[in-house]
Amino acid sequence: MFSGLCAFPLTPIREDHIDLKAVALLVSRAARAGVDSLGVLGSTGNYAYLSREERRSVLEASVDAADGVPILAGVGAVRTRDVLALVDDAQTAGASALLLAPVSYQRLTENEVFGLYKDVAEASSVPIVVYDNPATTGFIFTDELHSRIAEIPAIASIKIPPPQPGQASERLRELRSVLPDGTSVGVSGDWAAAESLLAGCDVWYSVIAGVLPEAAKIILDHALAGRGVQAREASASLEAVWSLFRAYGSLRVTAAIAEDLGLTSSPSLPLPLRGLDRDGRLKVADAIRRCGLEA
Amino acid sequence: MFSGLCAFPLTPIREDHIDLKAVALLVSRAARAGVDSLGVLGSTGNYAYLSREERRSVLEASVDAADGVPILAGVGAVRTRDVLALVDDAQTAGASALLLAPVSYQRLTENEVFGLYKDVAEASSVPIVVYDNPATTGFIFTDELHSRIAEIPAIASIKIPPPQPGQASERLRELRSVLPDGTSVGVSGDWAAAESLLAGCDVWYSVIAGVLPEAAKIILDHALAGRGVQAREASASLEAVWSLFRAYGSLRVTAAIAEDLGLTSSPSLPLPLRGLDRDGRLKVADAIRRCGLEA
Repeated sequence: MFSGLCAFPLTPIREDHIDLKAVALLVSRAARAGVDSLGVLGSTGNYAYLSREERRSVLEASVDAADGVPILAGVGAVRTRDVLALVDDAQTAGASALLLAPVSYQRLTENEVFGLYKDVAEASSVPIVVYDNPATTGFIFTDELHSRIAEIPAIASIKIPPPQPGQASERLRELRSVLPDGTSVGVSGDWAAAESLLAGCDVWYSVIAGVLPEAAKIILDHALAGRGVQAREASASLEAVWSLFRAYGSLRVTAAIAEDLGLTSSPSLPLPLRGLDRDGRLKVADAIRRCGLEA
Repeated sequence: MFSGLCAFPLTPIREDHIDLKAVALLVSRAARAGVDSLGVLGSTGNYAYLSREERRSVLEASVDAADGVPILAGVGAVRTRDVLALVDDAQTAGASALLLAPVSYQRLTENEVFGLYKDVAEASSVPIVVYDNPATTGFIFTDELHSRIAEIPAIASIKIPPPQPGQASERLRELRSVLPDGTSVGVSGDWAAAESLLAGCDVWYSVIAGVLPEAAKIILDHALAGRGVQAREASASLEAVWSLFRAYGSLRVTAAIAEDLGLTSSPSLPLPLRGLDRDGRLKVADAIRRCGLEA
């Protein structure tokens, strides 16, 4: 399951409660579009804002709606004790793999992060994806640390931040040179996906695929078939969306897209997150029309 | 209560449970040493790692042990809903004021942070201290935002990061020029305390005072009496400790001091935090002896 397209659905919030109907709708849309896996309770799934019970209910609703598509469950939390409880819950709910970021309050040391992955690997009977997201965790992985962690047998894949434009091949070569054979490398940062897949990334951990799975699937299929020109063109046709992702953050923009398309009510983010202002929403609506994404 | 010395005790963890006896010991030591207030469940109090129930039990034990010294309770969390529940708990437990950092997973916008303080102020009947700590939250306050937030009537004080050496007077002048009259400004970063108090900071939000309150009180008393030479000398006599704070972070060093002095068992931090390695612990023990802090 660590190849192809992994869609990360939103977890919409409605008046401080999770909108489980909207969760099921987003998951089943992505499953029907033919994604290879679903990343439930990723950053786009607002995992960091939810209680243990809420996370369990989102996983259960997603497993029900996924129609057999395997689910990768986010289990990050600042305390190891809480991560281990979430690992139990995720496995009980039927997750096929776990996604774990070194969520931090105090900045963590390399040894602390290694210890976290080791402790979680020992408690898990399903594979684990290392979630490297310095923008949310404040933790910067070195390639040496990636190498140490990837040696742990349960570690199956690494979700890396978007490479700089034009740097995907080099970044991938560097990283693979220190990883065990068979560790899957997946890219996040949707604007960098076409380039990174063409450079040999195994999987696209995709935010946009959670809300517009068909558009993502077109890029993926071209890239996996080696149709570089078409993959780049398909990605370029969404540049109006990508530039909003970079300006406002992909979560706020994806929530605005889902709200605009009527997939969720509005607002759909947990306070203190406030979603986009009026100006941002107008830009999102305009980008949806210009990119032909009204479906 | 937003002047003088505010001591931030550790919340020691013992085999994944809070050591409430050690909490009470640390709080009563600081209270007996004559601190002006106690910052319970600050960063040093590991608030971000504790459940709601744990936070309530730490507050209750601290109010019992504080012997009337007013308590400032940390109420930070990533979600506004959870902060509001913690505000209720803190007031019920007898906290005299609240300490609130814009704890983040997704990076917050200025409007989101303003909205957080506004929502919390509306729900609180006690004063609030703004906790400006970019190292743990990833959020950088502008002075313009400090000014907007400080206009909210419940906002009583701002806990600022340590000014650069030699910059305390200028930093304080800049900040006060945009704040309403009467907003207390307090410094964190113990190595900058003497300089910042001499420059006119109202309060020292102190990590070291949670474990070594007498040593902190000496610096404070010299500074408040305008004895600049003695205040700077007293601070310089702890330079071995301050340099470890800067190298390892004040939480890990303070925990090692408390463990070395037998005030808590060891280890005392919640995983994934692992405290100092053997080399770091030797340096801490050496600094304690050299600074004459064995008491």
